[in-house]
Amino acid sequence: MQAGKPILYSYFRSSCSWRVRIALALKSIDYETIPVNLIKDQGQQFSEEFQALNPMKQVPTLKIDGITISQSLAIIEFLEETRPTPRLLPKDPKKRAQVRMISDTIASGIQPLQNLSVLKQVGQENQLAWAQKVIHTGFDALEQILRSTAGKYCVGDEVSMADLCLVPQVANAERFKVDLTPYPTISRINKTLLALEAFQVSHPCRQPDTPPELRA
Amino acid sequence: MQAGKPILYSYFRSSCSWRVRIALALKSIDYETIPVNLIKDQGQQFSEEFQALNPMKQVPTLKIDGITISQSLAIIEFLEETRPTPRLLPKDPKKRAQVRMISDTIASGIQPLQNLSVLKQVGQENQLAWAQKVIHTGFDALEQILRSTAGKYCVGDEVSMADLCLVPQVANAERFKVDLTPYPTISRINKTLLALEAFQVSHPCRQPDTPPELRA
Repeated sequence: MQAGKPILYSYFRSSCSWRVRIALALKSIDYETIPVNLIKDQGQQFSEEFQALNPMKQVPTLKIDGITISQSLAIIEFLEETRPTPRLLPKDPKKRAQVRMISDTIASGIQPLQNLSVLKQVGQENQLAWAQKVIHTGFDALEQILRSTAGKYCVGDEVSMADLCLVPQVANAERFKVDLTPYPTISRINKTLLALEAFQVSHPCRQPDTPPELRA
Repeated sequence: MQAGKPILYSYFRSSCSWRVRIALALKSIDYETIPVNLIKDQGQQFSEEFQALNPMKQVPTLKIDGITISQSLAIIEFLEETRPTPRLLPKDPKKRAQVRMISDTIASGIQPLQNLSVLKQVGQENQLAWAQKVIHTGFDALEQILRSTAGKYCVGDEVSMADLCLVPQVANAERFKVDLTPYPTISRINKTLLALEAFQVSHPCRQPDTPPELRA
């Protein structure tokens, strides 16, 4: 069942795909990328072939160890359980709870409300205001939470799953022109994390499917 | 720090609160409920007192073992790590991944798009159609996933975190008058689970804050 390299179905700009790419990079897991362009061909995620892999028609999806997993946090938890080094969840259950609370705040409380499919439904002229409002509400909460959990990173001084969620969400905030001035803790941690190699190699501007004009 | 009974901040009709109530019931954890009425007083979750506990202004929030945890799945994972019996995650990492994938599909992919705050923004006359569409999209995927993972319950024959997410989401679907005919697997598992005591005592119609006219 160990069928060679893991395969990541990914879109360069998908913040959920980026979370998983960071995990793979931190854990030095060699993998192959199959790009799924969420915009081209009216959305390649809607193809019959891809729907069979991921019925939610979303990226990321990871084929690994003979199984196919969707949902970024489920993927990261699987990687953590099967490839525990370096760890992305602290040892202490209370700190693990903080990491998962922050991760879920982003993965359930912010990102789903500003993703492509919702914005399509909201309509072109309302998209920016909608996304900004959702991210502001979430970041107001996140800033308050991080003030009590953060050290160098989201929870203490070790990179955790929470950090893998934070950086891609800040990138979304920037895309939607959210003013980050009210969020000094979020901004500081984001900047510190972006200096790490795993966050750089996994960056949307450096993926196999990044369009030439967005490469850096 | 073991400060007596855990305290659950809950709203009878909140599907995310229900997930946690089922976990507490299954694990026979005695707790106290503090109701947070999401509608009364223009939403008690917006009070300064509650915001200090949960900056996202959402239920559930659990005070336990000297810490305060928000986000239902983070709470359930903490309970699983500190009170492992009976287990809500299988032993096998691949089956654990399936449980988390299904849980996240509901907790990130369906519920957030039909919760109270989003429906308020969508506007009164569009709410029902919006919620139905979101749930149909999610259930189309879920039905397909469950066809390959389910036994008696969502993943095999043991009750898991995925089941704790499924039943409250089906209740939401019923509230929004979603036709469940296309989802025989979802419907069968839901019915089987609703017969279990832990799902009954935690039911929205049997909470301390359930209005008399909705009690059963």
